[in-house]
Amino acid sequence: MISLPKLIAFDADDTLWANQTLFDEAEEKLRVLLKQFGSDQQINQTLIEVQTENLRLMGYGAKGFMLSMIEVAIRLTNGAVRGTQIGQIIDLGKELLRFPINLIDGVEQVLQTLSAGHELMVLTKGDLLDQESKLARSGVGQYFSHVEIVSEKHEAAYRRILARYHVEPADFLMIGNSLKSDILPVVNIGGQAIYVPYHTTWHFERLSQTEHSTGYLQVENIRDVIGLLSTLR
Amino acid sequence: MISLPKLIAFDADDTLWANQTLFDEAEEKLRVLLKQFGSDQQINQTLIEVQTENLRLMGYGAKGFMLSMIEVAIRLTNGAVRGTQIGQIIDLGKELLRFPINLIDGVEQVLQTLSAGHELMVLTKGDLLDQESKLARSGVGQYFSHVEIVSEKHEAAYRRILARYHVEPADFLMIGNSLKSDILPVVNIGGQAIYVPYHTTWHFERLSQTEHSTGYLQVENIRDVIGLLSTLR
Repeated sequence: MISLPKLIAFDADDTLWANQTLFDEAEEKLRVLLKQFGSDQQINQTLIEVQTENLRLMGYGAKGFMLSMIEVAIRLTNGAVRGTQIGQIIDLGKELLRFPINLIDGVEQVLQTLSAGHELMVLTKGDLLDQESKLARSGVGQYFSHVEIVSEKHEAAYRRILARYHVEPADFLMIGNSLKSDILPVVNIGGQAIYVPYHTTWHFERLSQTEHSTGYLQVENIRDVIGLLSTLR
Repeated sequence: MISLPKLIAFDADDTLWANQTLFDEAEEKLRVLLKQFGSDQQINQTLIEVQTENLRLMGYGAKGFMLSMIEVAIRLTNGAVRGTQIGQIIDLGKELLRFPINLIDGVEQVLQTLSAGHELMVLTKGDLLDQESKLARSGVGQYFSHVEIVSEKHEAAYRRILARYHVEPADFLMIGNSLKSDILPVVNIGGQAIYVPYHTTWHFERLSQTEHSTGYLQVENIRDVIGLLSTLR
């Protein structure tokens, strides 16, 4: 099922460190801030609408999320919201650009073990400086030979990166928490993938059950990757 | 002075296409929008202050610029600005994410000529999706073998990219409009550089006269690059 990879890539957010929980907390604070203007459900619905419009134009990451939260406030209040409240939303968003990084349990051990015998890469999407800053704050940057930050993790992006490093898809292993971004596109181009679910999945990364595929492995804890790979030596 | 390069990289904004003029126009519209709250000079000064704070956290690009413009409006009005006006600022900013790309005179001819005998790269900084989108809209993407978007164009970034492509600094030529980002760091690591000034330079790319260096060539029009390189064949 799995063969010895030449290059092992890790997704970052919610694979190496907690991220979605911080965004969920920011949304919770947004609901509190705007509670006089709409129910939780209205705020959630408007946020999804605005993000659906903005993701195409702005891409993933905290800055686009900040702008979407601001647009939600404007839309729900028909423009009556004050600068003071917009300023509070900006402060919420800025926290998402500098929160202390909490590594997921087992990550450091996995990176330490695997980096001894493999070339490791961080392969993530989002805002460039923000993702670089999170990696720097994480304290595990030294385990990675390569860092690739892309605007979208589709098949073409994986093909382009593998070509750049002269690695065949069959010699590539991707480890991540998103079936949509980390697992299915890699399986589709003939690569190997290990799915490590996180306890919460962002709305725009969720897949319907029918879109799931086979051809990848799933583990409970990222630590289990060590055992899986050690059988191959 | 200049030797045959293996890899030629072009900066994008204000080297391949007009960009700063669009941002300057957006600033002009911001001043009109906020004219009841401050003089042109106050608005300019506040924008520079806010951007100085935000660039470190948010990096370069239109999304950070949108957020900075919003913060200027909040700061100048002590929070009294209305959502309606913030919405107008967001609309201004969204235009910066989708304006039609106007190639600088001579660019297409240069790319067509040089791509026949050289490997060409786009090497730019800013927001990932935004820069990819501009390249797609430019219609000249097909001339480039590689696209590299970085958060900052300092010496370490150039060294990292050259290592990734196994190119020695002496075999690398960078062409761009920013002495600070395109020319000096490349000269400092032993690379070649051609400076093509644009008629306007962003505040944060300006250098004092004493920071200028030697070791690079300067041309008036990007078309002159063809003549410079043809003498080397």
